[in-house]
Amino acid sequence: MAQGFVSLVGGGPGDPELWTVRALRRVQEADLVLYDALIDAAALHGLTKAQCFCVGKRAGRASVLQETIHRLMIRAARQGKRVVRLKGGDPFVFGRGAEEAIALRDAGIDFEVVPGVTTAVAAAELAGIPVTHRGVSTGFLVVAGHSGEALKRALGGIRSDAVTVIVMMGLAVRDSIVATLTTCGWGVTTPAAIVCGASTPDEWIWTGTLEDMGAAPVPAGVPGVLVIGDVVDVREAVAVSAGPEVMYGRS
Amino acid sequence: MAQGFVSLVGGGPGDPELWTVRALRRVQEADLVLYDALIDAAALHGLTKAQCFCVGKRAGRASVLQETIHRLMIRAARQGKRVVRLKGGDPFVFGRGAEEAIALRDAGIDFEVVPGVTTAVAAAELAGIPVTHRGVSTGFLVVAGHSGEALKRALGGIRSDAVTVIVMMGLAVRDSIVATLTTCGWGVTTPAAIVCGASTPDEWIWTGTLEDMGAAPVPAGVPGVLVIGDVVDVREAVAVSAGPEVMYGRS
Repeated sequence: MAQGFVSLVGGGPGDPELWTVRALRRVQEADLVLYDALIDAAALHGLTKAQCFCVGKRAGRASVLQETIHRLMIRAARQGKRVVRLKGGDPFVFGRGAEEAIALRDAGIDFEVVPGVTTAVAAAELAGIPVTHRGVSTGFLVVAGHSGEALKRALGGIRSDAVTVIVMMGLAVRDSIVATLTTCGWGVTTPAAIVCGASTPDEWIWTGTLEDMGAAPVPAGVPGVLVIGDVVDVREAVAVSAGPEVMYGRS
Repeated sequence: MAQGFVSLVGGGPGDPELWTVRALRRVQEADLVLYDALIDAAALHGLTKAQCFCVGKRAGRASVLQETIHRLMIRAARQGKRVVRLKGGDPFVFGRGAEEAIALRDAGIDFEVVPGVTTAVAAAELAGIPVTHRGVSTGFLVVAGHSGEALKRALGGIRSDAVTVIVMMGLAVRDSIVATLTTCGWGVTTPAAIVCGASTPDEWIWTGTLEDMGAAPVPAGVPGVLVIGDVVDVREAVAVSAGPEVMYGRS
């Protein structure tokens, strides 16, 4: 029997129109799709006849163990199936995609990686905030907020006038992120934004200052990205947002 | 006459299969496409009946002035045309996309931004290098190499054990980037990679150490990304690459 194949696919920030053309093609041709909680399940089911299983963390239920995901992919591939592992954002940005790649490689399974639109950049962008902008920011740092120690190491050396800071998975600990940055010399009036549910019907945007970010109220159950730096102020000039259709302008 | 509309669209690292579904749709429905030099012109012409003009820098010719690009977009939109401004990577990552958005907004033109797969992440990824990896790197910094002063400010505070550094447009000055990093305490044996022409038929990958990166020979005329940090070593475990079909594994 022919061996199957696994595609580790980035699903972008949420809206299936922000999948890549290759991602769409792989999903359409798949026998099995293992998808994360951030994927639009209704849209997915409408696009493929594949068996689709959510392996991500959903409200009230634990996520499937990483090792179980590896086992499911490997078993299906050995049965000759075309497997798509559909992940939010980009598979190699906090997605444990490389761990899955290594597991597949160790098992001798053919696979590919299909990059996706990373939510780190797109969430800011869909809110009208460029992560780089001439004369304002010449780079950006993307870190995960859930590990306090790692965060301190990464943020500790960043000069506040140098780059935009983007924190993923940091909503719940934004208090301590603000404290870390101000301890490192970032001004309390540094512009800051929170973007939740970018490109989805739940899109929600807050802007203010670093000082206020810790206490900003955020919607429950919607993942979000923190954006810190002077680029947040560029949003005013770009336009006021938006909604899921990503439409800026006069109308 | 109905007013036109401008879409600022990210074209990803090169391969049109890595455009988003929305990008493809906008290109197919466009009347006018203004595209950058890194876009696959042959593929573009095959996908649309729109007028297509390259406004990027090509060998032996200067690029079109930024102000001229603004004027072309605005004039066409006022004529009722659907305009696509197709840029390499993501429009808001070193793409001057926000400058174009501001020009459109100031002119009262309706527009949208369509995020793309950023080359910063995808170039590493397509070479088998995850920009983040558990136990190795908890974040990544993306900077542009062409401004030495800005680069020093951004890199100066980064601790070498904290994050992956990705330098765009830094091929020609990789010598000075290496010098800046080693001055900041980065070890000369830090793993490093150069990825040129990611996802295109010209894809070319070099890996070595920070020390050797400055003198590494690179192909002429192909844009490249520098990746510096321990994640480069993860490539061995993920698999040896690749080529434009992005296929890893045994075959």
